[in-house]
Parts: sequence; structure tokens; C-alpha cells
Amino acid sequence: MLAAEIIAIGSELLAPDRTDTNSLWLTDKLNRVGIDVKLKTIVGDDDARLEELIKDAVKRSRVVITTGGLGPTEDDITRKVVARALGRRLLLDENVLNEIRARFQSFGVTMPERNSRQAMVIDGAEVLPNPNGTAPGLYLEHEGCAIALFPGPPREMNPMFENHVRSRLEKLAGDLRFARRVLRVAGMGESAVDEKIAPIYTRYENPQTTILFNSSEIEIHLRAHGRTEADAEALLDDLSLKIEEALGNSVFSFRGETMEEVVGRRLSITGFTLAVAESCTGGLIAQRLTNVPGSSKYFIEGVVTYS
Amino acid sequence: MLAAEIIAIGSELLAPDRTDTNSLWLTDKLNRVGIDVKLKTIVGDDDARLEELIKDAVKRSRVVITTGGLGPTEDDITRKVVARALGRRLLLDENVLNEIRARFQSFGVTMPERNSRQAMVIDGAEVLPNPNGTAPGLYLEHEGCAIALFPGPPREMNPMFENHVRSRLEKLAGDLRFARRVLRVAGMGESAVDEKIAPIYTRYENPQTTILFNSSEIEIHLRAHGRTEADAEALLDDLSLKIEEALGNSVFSFRGETMEEVVGRRLSITGFTLAVAESCTGGLIAQRLTNVPGSSKYFIEGVVTYS
Repeated sequence: MLAAEIIAIGSELLAPDRTDTNSLWLTDKLNRVGIDVKLKTIVGDDDARLEELIKDAVKRSRVVITTGGLGPTEDDITRKVVARALGRRLLLDENVLNEIRARFQSFGVTMPERNSRQAMVIDGAEVLPNPNGTAPGLYLEHEGCAIALFPGPPREMNPMFENHVRSRLEKLAGDLRFARRVLRVAGMGESAVDEKIAPIYTRYENPQTTILFNSSEIEIHLRAHGRTEADAEALLDDLSLKIEEALGNSVFSFRGETMEEVVGRRLSITGFTLAVAESCTGGLIAQRLTNVPGSSKYFIEGVVTYS
Repeated sequence: MLAAEIIAIGSELLAPDRTDTNSLWLTDKLNRVGIDVKLKTIVGDDDARLEELIKDAVKRSRVVITTGGLGPTEDDITRKVVARALGRRLLLDENVLNEIRARFQSFGVTMPERNSRQAMVIDGAEVLPNPNGTAPGLYLEHEGCAIALFPGPPREMNPMFENHVRSRLEKLAGDLRFARRVLRVAGMGESAVDEKIAPIYTRYENPQTTILFNSSEIEIHLRAHGRTEADAEALLDDLSLKIEEALGNSVFSFRGETMEEVVGRRLSITGFTLAVAESCTGGLIAQRLTNVPGSSKYFIEGVVTYS
């Protein structure tokens, strides 16, 4: 299985109240195409540390993905430092420059001079268009390593990965696909769940099973691999059916849906409506129910008394 | 300012639904004693990658903290791999072994043989007692680098840091202390806030100011340093007062309190009570209000209509 590493770049990500969530999204996507994430790093806008990281990453991993640091300002160092780490030149790409300029013009604004930095391209890299921002991404292969540089904002990064990088990595990964599924269980304790299903899931090396306790519910995480995603899904179908037979109605969700989504779907199907009266939960139940798109069809009203 | 790096160890942390939260807690604590976190890494139970990381970390950072991988099983590799990376031996510590054995006996259980691994100590390291678990931590200094190895569970790691490591790092850091503060602003847009206060905060290099947009509110993050924490706090007092003068009542919170906490405190002081009628928010307001401890004193009831 191919090894990937993800590097998140930006000093703001090293604050005590910030986590890097891009890497979770990327990990899920990489796992699905059969690539394992072996290392994740968060580094500030720090030339020396980033350069060392990139050099090491390219040596030890077949896939290296960076997020962030592609903006127009001095502290956006990704393009410059990655080029230096790989010993490649940075070249001004006139097409990219024109696109950025046109983007600003479409808002009726002249492109600030500093944005021309975003048109600098690492020699030999392909430009990944960014319809949602001014920072284009870059993709290149270097000494057997596939390298993708993405901007930090998810709404810019996610479509760029999906439209321009996913299929390339899928080819690299070869004949191994993964699928994941989350089953949710209510009304049983963690050890009771494990007692009932351990005799089943321990017979399987594929899918792998993990049991997690998540505030009021038990989550059963299944992960399978196969030659195609359909093969992996079929393995998940098989095991999740056996788990359902063992746990019965306590399994209320087979695709990670929340309790309020499941309740909402049942109400929609049957045409019933719902009103809630809450005390200790203080509006939480109404809030969760009305958070489901389409809930106005069945949710009539709620009352909270709390004194 | 001393540079630290934090390494979280454990393959489960590389799953697409897991973030490393220990590093946030540690970053806050390190910042407060005047140490900057320059790099964070998450690595699996992977000997070669961890060994390389530790070797690099010790070379480039003055403080290296690892979390996780100190358990009793085969895949708990931290002690072994760190020892190897530093070129030190692992020695069985009879005292630690006896403590672990006694801990099991106090639960009426014989210590499983594999737990004796947890009594292996890196040559020259001090053992950090763990009253909340079987895995002791380790602290050592190696070629000018302070290294602390902590277990992963926060309830084990946090007191170990506070009681045995914080004061050592405080000494290393010398005369530099940090303080942070979050001001919250409602009813103004991000650029309007910036326009009013940029002429003020740009005059200061210390405190540093960051403006963030956080769903419905603007957050102003201030970070100051001084020779003592009190000096740093005084600098924050000065700047936050000037910001309040510029923004007036739009600043509703000076210590990061939420809107519902501020509202609740005012109601408590004045003796007023509150009832809410919600539509589109579907119970969210009642839920936020009743989430504040003591809210039953002033929150009477809520009604949600949503159809």
C-alpha cells in the first residue's frame, strides 16, 4: 500500500486553539483510493523547517500533499520553499498571471502587484486551476514521488483534489481500494456491544473493526479493502448484516446517519408530524431535529421549560 | 524564544476522523511559560519514521515532547525507538516495576507479564510518576534538548506535565512569559472592525493582534509577552481598553466568554428572567442559554415553532 504524508503550512495552525482539519478530509480521500497516510505535520511559515520537511518527505513517502501557504503575501512560502527543497526553479507563468488578473477584473478591481507571486510555478509542475480563489495549486512528480500543493481553504482545496489529483493518485495506487462504514448503536453499553459482536468481527481480518464510545452512542467503525470499491463495499455489507443480526434494533444507523436524521427520514416516509416538550435538554432536541434539512415538513413545535 | 516541537504517536491518530488534541493543550501551556511551538507531527506505530523524527527533532528544537505509545503492548514503541534514536540503552527500573505491580495488586489483579515493558527506562532519564495509569512518563536532557515522553490519555498526561515538567521548562525559557486574550464583537462586519482598530493595534508589536471571523461574531485575539505573566497581562489590559474605546458596546466579551455566558451573567446580576420564542433557530437559542451552568435561575421557558 502506498505511503502518503500530509504537511499543513501556516503559523496560525500552531496556535493553541487551531486544529488542521484539511488532513482529515484528505486522509479519507486517500484511503478510499488505497493510499495510507503515514505521517502528518503542521509547520509554521518557517523556511528552514519547511525545506527540511519537504526534503525528508520526498525521500520517505510516495505521495506528499501540502495545504496552505499559497497566498499572495510574504509569509506564504510554500511555492518558494518547495522549489528550493527540490532544487527546481520558479518560473512566472503568463497564463496563470492573466487568469488571476482577469479574476480581479471580474470583481471590478485591479490586481494588487503582490498577487503576481501566485503565478510563479515550480519548473516541471502542472498548474491546478482554482475556480474558487486566486491561488492555483501545483502537481508534479519528482524522483518517484507525487507531490501536490493545495491552498488551505477547504472550498478551494477540495474540488481541486477531486477534479485534478484524485484520479492520478488512483492510478498510482493500483489494484487496492478501501471502503469505510460507521454503524451506530443506541441503548446498549460498550462492553455489552463488544460481548455480542466480538465473536463475529474477530473472525475477519478484512474488514477491520473498531468500537468507539461517543457520548450517548456506540459507534462501530468498519474498514475493508478489495480490488475495487464495490468489492470492499460487499465485504462491509456482509459483516454489517451479521452485526445487525446480533444486535437487532439497537443498530439504528448503517451509514453513519445521526439519530435525528434517522428519525426525520421515518417521519417523512410515514407522514407523521412531531412536537417536543423539553426540560433538562433545554432546546437541544428541537435544535438537533430542526438541523436536519427538510425538517419543517414534520417538526411542528417545541416547548422548553427549565426553571 | 525557545522552539518546541510536539510529536503525537499512534496509528489510530492517522484515521480520517481523529485529531490530536493533546498538542493544543500542550501548546497553550508551553506558550504560557514562554516557549514557541514550531512544529507538530503525528506519526503511527512505525519504528523507522519515528526514529527519523526523533533524531531530527532533537537537532532542530530545544524542547521535544511526545505523547502516546507508552502502553504495554507490542505496538507501543515510544520508549524503545526514542532510546535507539538517542543512542541510549533501555534499562529495567525495579522501583517502577514494583509500583506497576502494586497498582495491579490494589485492583486485586496480578500484573500481566507484558506490563513489565512499562518499567523500561531510557538510560539517564528521570521517571515521571503517573498516579492515573500504569505508564510512567520520562524526562531527559540530551545534547541541549529537553525531552519529555508522556502517555496519550489527557487525564494521565496533563497532571504529569503540570507537576513534573512545567517548572523545568519555565526555568529553561528564562525571562519571557506570554499571555493571550480573546475579545468578541457582535453586530459589526470584519472589515468595519478592522477599519476602526487597525490604526490602534498596528502601533503595537507587542501585543500581537489577529482578527478572526467566527460564524456570527468577530474574534480579536491578542497575544503579549513580558518578563512576567503579570507584565504580559498589563499589556493586554492596555490594548484591550483602547479597542473597547474604539468599538464601544459592540465588544461584548473581554475574556473569551460566549454571548450566552455574558447574557446569563447580566440576568443573574439584575435578577431578571428570560423566556424565548424561536422559529428558524429551532431551539438553538434555548439550548445555548441553558448550556450555561446556573441558567435555571433566569431561564424560564422556550417555545419553538418550525412548520
